Amino acid sequence: MVHNNMTRTITAQTLADLWARLKAKAPRVHCITNSVVQNLTANTLLAVGAVPSMSTDAHEIDDFSRSAHALLVNLGTLDAERRHAIATAIPLIREAGQSWVLDPVMIDRAAHRLAYARDLLALSPSIIRANQAEADALGAHHTVLAVSGVEDRVETAQGRILLAHGHAYGSMITGGGCALSAIMAALAAVTDNPVLAAATGFAAYGIAQDIAARDAEGPGSFAVRLLDELANLSPERLAYDLSMRIEDQP
Amino acid sequence: MVHNNMTRTITAQTLADLWARLKAKAPRVHCITNSVVQNLTANTLLAVGAVPSMSTDAHEIDDFSRSAHALLVNLGTLDAERRHAIATAIPLIREAGQSWVLDPVMIDRAAHRLAYARDLLALSPSIIRANQAEADALGAHHTVLAVSGVEDRVETAQGRILLAHGHAYGSMITGGGCALSAIMAALAAVTDNPVLAAATGFAAYGIAQDIAARDAEGPGSFAVRLLDELANLSPERLAYDLSMRIEDQP
Amino acid sequence: MVHNNMTRTITAQTLADLWARLKAKAPRVHCITNSVVQNLTANTLLAVGAVPSMSTDAHEIDDFSRSAHALLVNLGTLDAERRHAIATAIPLIREAGQSWVLDPVMIDRAAHRLAYARDLLALSPSIIRANQAEADALGAHHTVLAVSGVEDRVETAQGRILLAHGHAYGSMITGGGCALSAIMAALAAVTDNPVLAAATGFAAYGIAQDIAARDAEGPGSFAVRLLDELANLSPERLAYDLSMRIEDQP
Repeated sequence: MVHNNMTRTITAQTLADLWARLKAKAPRVHCITNSVVQNLTANTLLAVGAVPSMSTDAHEIDDFSRSAHALLVNLGTLDAERRHAIATAIPLIREAGQSWVLDPVMIDRAAHRLAYARDLLALSPSIIRANQAEADALGAHHTVLAVSGVEDRVETAQGRILLAHGHAYGSMITGGGCALSAIMAALAAVTDNPVLAAATGFAAYGIAQDIAARDAEGPGSFAVRLLDELANLSPERLAYDLSMRIEDQP
Repeated sequence: MVHNNMTRTITAQTLADLWARLKAKAPRVHCITNSVVQNLTANTLLAVGAVPSMSTDAHEIDDFSRSAHALLVNLGTLDAERRHAIATAIPLIREAGQSWVLDPVMIDRAAHRLAYARDLLALSPSIIRANQAEADALGAHHTVLAVSGVEDRVETAQGRILLAHGHAYGSMITGGGCALSAIMAALAAVTDNPVLAAATGFAAYGIAQDIAARDAEGPGSFAVRLLDELANLSPERLAYDLSMRIEDQP
Repeated sequence: MVHNNMTRTITAQTLADLWARLKAKAPRVHCITNSVVQNLTANTLLAVGAVPSMSTDAHEIDDFSRSAHALLVNLGTLDAERRHAIATAIPLIREAGQSWVLDPVMIDRAAHRLAYARDLLALSPSIIRANQAEADALGAHHTVLAVSGVEDRVETAQGRILLAHGHAYGSMITGGGCALSAIMAALAAVTDNPVLAAATGFAAYGIAQDIAARDAEGPGSFAVRLLDELANLSPERLAYDLSMRIEDQP
């Protein structure tokens, strides 16, 4: 649910404060995500100071969901077990008043996955993190939408926030977007403002990319440095480097 | 089916041209591959300019297969879902006139997997990429065979192509061979000559290893640099560095 | 079963000798482990000179278990297929007189997983490798217990061995502990003394961390260097750097 004052509170300082809070709180983030990116997602969460878990087993999903502070639902490599885990975990997270983030990976490539993503909208994700093609396929909804692109964008009913960070190497790392969605879930665990969580996620991930790209010699060394810079990024540096523009709805 | 003139067209320049075409076309490669190497395979395809997808789900495999320009079938971590995906994807790829590459991982270690690999031969893979033990276990067939080793080898009915590139670190990276098979699938998507695709794959992957090994301090840094060098390798450099020998069938 | 003289034979030299034997023997280690860490586990085993395999398929687990020299059972991302594979593989490994190592990942987070881990104790793992919270949850047993922490600890009926190596970055790499358990399984394949295998695993993994941390700039570059240093670590260096204390049971 997007509150009226959500974009009003967004400043470089509130982003930096949320980044600091993430490192102080070390929230548990349960990830139902695809097998291709589980490793990078877990390492990214550890780098930013969160505690990842990844089980999708029917015997365990209850316990992991109940003890998590936020949930990530990523639709890559969907299977029967993951569908069951998603159906179990989301209601538990919502009952506990926690946030969940939807990453509708490649819904523009498979009709069945698209229909499934649309059904999940009824369960009120706090943030949808997608690329433009996925966002277009998903269609209209009332959730905070975080669209990755050359310019990153957070869209809400009140307006939009634009962030100008990141490097072309970012799209040459598989699971980069998935890892970013996990960061947003971790941030959503320590604020009740999903717009702020989405903007801070874009800022931190984008600025870490800016720094990582400087000495990278290709996508391999870029990916390694990106984890380093996510771990090293201070709230002060985040605020100092931030390039963000807020456009209120007219 | 190996055409008579397949090895005749193989020169340093035709390899370089195919490498350039891969980067220009950015083909979609659907990968049914083992969970251990999905991440490296996806990152390798992105590094060489292709677009990977990895779903094995019964609800999605149709859509992903139909929209792919080539298919990789890797037999590691086989399970019921992967078997179903393979049985669905191969006929769809063949109907569309696209190529598929078989990587019969460790068929020399499990009798059931070996029998399964032999059954797949009837579905006419464009290329089989294997190590010597796997190739020996598989036995006789009429497919272009790409055998990784100290000297890499492409075998056809007309003769064989030998390439002298690569480094011992290459065998200390899990999924290195699997990633190479994926590169060959990407190349097979942009040529109708599987011999050329196999030779170009060996050349690019081997030359990138040669360069990566120079400043590597162990298998970890080698793997990182290998992705960098695959992304940075120009067609000109590929042709310049190439060490290839063609032996016609007497 | 812990023999009376197990801790008596533990010296810097016996650790170095076992490390040398691992590299000379190149044992096959079959790993039933979670999807998040399969890649790092395989790369770690390759770096230390072992030969990993990872299948959990019902049609193949027999062949892979029979041809392995040791087995790793890791309880992360448990599912029906993994449970079946575990139930099949452990008896086969025991019949062959080989060792198996249990890594009870996050049993403190899920009751069902904890009960399952306790059931596995009846099948006599050679080593349990865990963190303190997992070890506490597991409760009393008669197996050699290897507890990772700021100070690593091998506990036996006769006493305990304490090792002071490693870096905080180690806990920022997902699957670091899982990879260490795999190293212990590889070492257990080339000795009949599980206490020595556990101590050597801690020593090698911890000393490689010490060296890797010197020039690392964050958890990403640390993980890359750690693989390098595991591959480069000589038996002499292991003995020279070793910081180990043995406390006999009074």
